[in-house]
Amino acid sequence: MALIGDIGERQLIEDFKSFLRPEGRVGPGDDAAVIGKDIVVTTDVVTFDRHFPAGMTYEQFGWYAAAVNFSDLAAMGARPMGFTAALALPPTLDAQAAYDIMSGMDQCAEFCGTGIVGGDTKPGPGVVAGTAIGSMDGRKPMLRSGARPGDVVAITGPVGGPAAGFQALDKGIDCQAAKDTLYMPIPRVAEGMILAESGIASSCIDLSDGLGTALNTICGSSKVGIDVEFDFIRHEPYVDDIAEQTGVPIEDMLLGWGGEYELMFTADPDRLKKLYDEDLEFWIIGMVHEGDHPELIREGSRSDITYGEY
Amino acid sequence: MALIGDIGERQLIEDFKSFLRPEGRVGPGDDAAVIGKDIVVTTDVVTFDRHFPAGMTYEQFGWYAAAVNFSDLAAMGARPMGFTAALALPPTLDAQAAYDIMSGMDQCAEFCGTGIVGGDTKPGPGVVAGTAIGSMDGRKPMLRSGARPGDVVAITGPVGGPAAGFQALDKGIDCQAAKDTLYMPIPRVAEGMILAESGIASSCIDLSDGLGTALNTICGSSKVGIDVEFDFIRHEPYVDDIAEQTGVPIEDMLLGWGGEYELMFTADPDRLKKLYDEDLEFWIIGMVHEGDHPELIREGSRSDITYGEY
Repeated sequence: MALIGDIGERQLIEDFKSFLRPEGRVGPGDDAAVIGKDIVVTTDVVTFDRHFPAGMTYEQFGWYAAAVNFSDLAAMGARPMGFTAALALPPTLDAQAAYDIMSGMDQCAEFCGTGIVGGDTKPGPGVVAGTAIGSMDGRKPMLRSGARPGDVVAITGPVGGPAAGFQALDKGIDCQAAKDTLYMPIPRVAEGMILAESGIASSCIDLSDGLGTALNTICGSSKVGIDVEFDFIRHEPYVDDIAEQTGVPIEDMLLGWGGEYELMFTADPDRLKKLYDEDLEFWIIGMVHEGDHPELIREGSRSDITYGEY
Repeated sequence: MALIGDIGERQLIEDFKSFLRPEGRVGPGDDAAVIGKDIVVTTDVVTFDRHFPAGMTYEQFGWYAAAVNFSDLAAMGARPMGFTAALALPPTLDAQAAYDIMSGMDQCAEFCGTGIVGGDTKPGPGVVAGTAIGSMDGRKPMLRSGARPGDVVAITGPVGGPAAGFQALDKGIDCQAAKDTLYMPIPRVAEGMILAESGIASSCIDLSDGLGTALNTICGSSKVGIDVEFDFIRHEPYVDDIAEQTGVPIEDMLLGWGGEYELMFTADPDRLKKLYDEDLEFWIIGMVHEGDHPELIREGSRSDITYGEY
């Protein structure tokens, strides 16, 4: 009999997907499910084991546990309506730490325009399962499947910060800015709502599993290819610095790491003007074309972009 | 610095409640939160440690993980719209067991008229955090705070089964019917919707923390007293048998145990006729009066009903 550890987490998620029965218009392939007329719901688990890098505070861990869920709402363009959290915390944990986790979740929910509306706690090893609920308010949810050849591909902010932050921690490099992107990701809820409201995004996804995985996911769901211009991938100068200091290839840091919370979207270039009029920053990184996978163009040569390891 | 294990789970939940900001009409004191116009949401965690009695199958554990959440929707009278689950399962667990858990959740969701719409899995010690989302469809949510002196108190079915089931397991008594109430609780979703639709329930609560706790909760939230007639508390004959065989007082088994999933509601007796016309079974167990706590009347003598230990 195969154990979960043998079949791997991806197979477990595939098994899970076989049970998913969306009650509404959108399937489980997207960041969140749309149920009923307009309600969007998503669930993500974070654990002390996996999501608690050195130097993170309990408050930041709480923020993070909420942020990963709100980011999924953001990717569809939903307005957050509430957040629930189930905490399984060790009896040996400081009560203050538990309080700080709740406070961090509360602050993130408030940042996203809503609050904690329910929860549960049980003894456990340090697991927080969050669920964010949102409303489309009549907007059309942005999916992963709508990218069309000729669309531009854009991101709402710089990437590579979390990879740089991890390397900084790992190698003892002093770079607070990089570490902060790891400790307190900003879910792009306002940006997602602007994008959905504009009606011009043909697809959208958050970068929580990394830019490389997001590009592959959009190619797979939309049955297209994407060319990404390496020089267009916006990132902070410290990402270059840390890549240089650690010897980690810069492409890996920009494409291969998760924990990013910017949005990536595709859109008809002729309709982009509408977005320039909005209060939304974005950077074009490539183009959609006929094909079936993403490629990176760097100094004139092409290479396949693979799924990240994260 | 106090540890979670020192301050206890109740204090942790009180801390948590201080962060709850209902986005809608209903506070965190109720089984679920109402957000937006009509959406009801609730989260409950179950763990291998605490909620996996001997003889339970993984499929039943999955059913149970979903049922506790749907029961919270039932208590408010919501129609289930979707269920999400976050699984934290040990890598050493059979993959088949994980599949069975998902299948059990799926079956329970289907029984409740909906399906699994999202989820996440991570390695962990055996924790399932479920979230159920529902809609009031314009009905008024039933709360814990509306009971009025003069109302009758009723339950939708027999109690004491889970207590008897636990004792049967513990003492090696052969009583499958009792064990089954423990393994596969039936969330009273249809009953809750009928009650809310009727508009005559002045308060409602599920019995997941036991009848004694439910009575105390209604008294506290509604600022009333309740007299319960011991002889009216409906239960199966096997509960008496097992109480007799084990020496556990029958009052404890009927009032002091959790894991029950019938609903308890209060209603103006003059309006009960409306319920008799519906497809809803219920049994009157007592009366609401002025006061501040519930009392049990047995063979003419009175005693206070306390919160259960569960």
